[in-house]
Amino acid sequence: MTQAPAPKLYRHAHPLKLELGGELPRLEIAYHTYGKLNSAKSNVVWVCHALTANSDVADWWPHTVETGCFLDPERWFVVCANILGSHYGTTGPLSVNPSTGIPYYGTFPALTIRDMVAAHRLLASHLGIDRIHALVGSSVGGFQTIEWAVTEPERFNRLVLIATAAKASPWTIAIDETQRMAIEADATYGQPRADAGMAGLAAARAIGLLTYRGGAGYNITQQDLPEQENSIIDRSARRACTYQQYQGEKLCRRYNAYSYVTILNAFDTHDVGRNRGGLSAALARLSMPVMTIGLTTDMIFTTSEMRALAEMIPGATYDEIDSEFGHDGFLVEHRKLNRLLTSFI
Amino acid sequence: MTQAPAPKLYRHAHPLKLELGGELPRLEIAYHTYGKLNSAKSNVVWVCHALTANSDVADWWPHTVETGCFLDPERWFVVCANILGSHYGTTGPLSVNPSTGIPYYGTFPALTIRDMVAAHRLLASHLGIDRIHALVGSSVGGFQTIEWAVTEPERFNRLVLIATAAKASPWTIAIDETQRMAIEADATYGQPRADAGMAGLAAARAIGLLTYRGGAGYNITQQDLPEQENSIIDRSARRACTYQQYQGEKLCRRYNAYSYVTILNAFDTHDVGRNRGGLSAALARLSMPVMTIGLTTDMIFTTSEMRALAEMIPGATYDEIDSEFGHDGFLVEHRKLNRLLTSFI
Repeated sequence: MTQAPAPKLYRHAHPLKLELGGELPRLEIAYHTYGKLNSAKSNVVWVCHALTANSDVADWWPHTVETGCFLDPERWFVVCANILGSHYGTTGPLSVNPSTGIPYYGTFPALTIRDMVAAHRLLASHLGIDRIHALVGSSVGGFQTIEWAVTEPERFNRLVLIATAAKASPWTIAIDETQRMAIEADATYGQPRADAGMAGLAAARAIGLLTYRGGAGYNITQQDLPEQENSIIDRSARRACTYQQYQGEKLCRRYNAYSYVTILNAFDTHDVGRNRGGLSAALARLSMPVMTIGLTTDMIFTTSEMRALAEMIPGATYDEIDSEFGHDGFLVEHRKLNRLLTSFI
Repeated sequence: MTQAPAPKLYRHAHPLKLELGGELPRLEIAYHTYGKLNSAKSNVVWVCHALTANSDVADWWPHTVETGCFLDPERWFVVCANILGSHYGTTGPLSVNPSTGIPYYGTFPALTIRDMVAAHRLLASHLGIDRIHALVGSSVGGFQTIEWAVTEPERFNRLVLIATAAKASPWTIAIDETQRMAIEADATYGQPRADAGMAGLAAARAIGLLTYRGGAGYNITQQDLPEQENSIIDRSARRACTYQQYQGEKLCRRYNAYSYVTILNAFDTHDVGRNRGGLSAALARLSMPVMTIGLTTDMIFTTSEMRALAEMIPGATYDEIDSEFGHDGFLVEHRKLNRLLTSFI
């Protein structure tokens, strides 16, 4: 894999009105593209990223943006935009609020998945992209994918929905709420600075990791070595403990708590059926070929939920990837994904 | 169910030396008994309680200490002691440290499951109980049960191990570490007062709840009402959010963060094989009849782990309870438990 370029930046010329009543007077969207748009503009594959990722798909989704893989840059013009509210170049809580001259921090307006899609649509217009051959998303990326497709189904030839849902379930909302509780337990959250709530963010990330990886994942990768077992009664010597601490700290070095909470809040609003006559009516709009993929050990979006989703979408097929890595399997199982997706796309 | 009596208190006359090197100069043990010890002292059923419970089994384990149930007080002399480090009468972090004259709070010495068992043994001596007909424990109560049985197998006629393990797995340790991270994100944790770390404790409890109940449990019980679905973009109106908040606050009203962390730390040390030549050698000591019970949706102690545990214990059989309530099934499924346990005990 060659070193990916820095994101490009699109500065939108108008304010963005938000679904819940807020407004962003200024909107910037950071994005990556890979490969070349052909003259017919018919080779666009658009990837929607998940929670704390960025627009650099080649970086966070290893072995996908490569020759022969499903995001082959020699064949496809791959686009990925950093989502609204995020930390990687698109307007978010650390952006300067033009009306105050200082960053938004905790005053950033509430977003929905529909707002994220609105931003994607503005970028597509800016890039002169009308038709999108394939729209791909996993997890919260899948939320954007299915929402965008329901909004304007005629734009897409096909969809790929990996480990995701058409509506946030009570279970996933409870996970998000628990992460918010951890962040809010850190009294520095709310203070007007970029590193507010960092201890809480670390704990929130550790909660997320539990749900991304699941029991099988931890028990495979975080066993203590036999020689340690008799001596460690100290948490700092336990792999499972240091792994949680490490993952928390790692996120804190690259992210901020305000973006994290903004996106969790948007997650919870996800419901493609809202104000559209319910889920079935909304999903009935999707008559293009749709590939849905579940991961056997995913405890966030279970295989039975993914199967039920496929049954509600007229054009959908369901495939399953056998993985021991839970929800994170979508990042790990690139071989199996490439096999399924290269032929589908 | 009649109102249960307040706990009795046993004041031990000597200091208790702890496995990790600490010492408790004073030891008090709060306990409940139900029914009457017969003259042959042959009708003792001892229950070991889990994480935040107390010695009042009839209160926290509904429909078990009742006529015709497996803890029938007309037949059995049921004993349950509040565990060391807990909040309900037994010496713990809120007890006064005799060497300073103020409560221990964060200076309470580190405990292991073996220390909890040492306290149980002292109470048994005090009560004049030598032989115990059945020792019963679920979850961390099961940790004490299996540890005590391995320590002195000749004392017990039979064991019941529900949703538990012979050794804390990396997955369960990761869950505990994540809860500690949430508590420590609350900067008041560490301050010398009983309500230190309460916001963190609420978040930790919410994490615990996720793992106790699991996805199926939340999706059954925490669906928003249809009329709410179109309007709620506000977390305070979402059932899954208010449930997490409510459960966190509820624990804060009845518990303290120091006891919680003390018991989590002890949880992580659990390994009946430590300094005994490993798990297999330790479990080989258990030749009495042992009933192990798994819960189909338990993500903390999975059915495959419970089955593997049963296979390592010479006298064990394995039974499974079909439940949608995850690990908490052991508290909910009293009908199924009574059916299995009444005949076994």
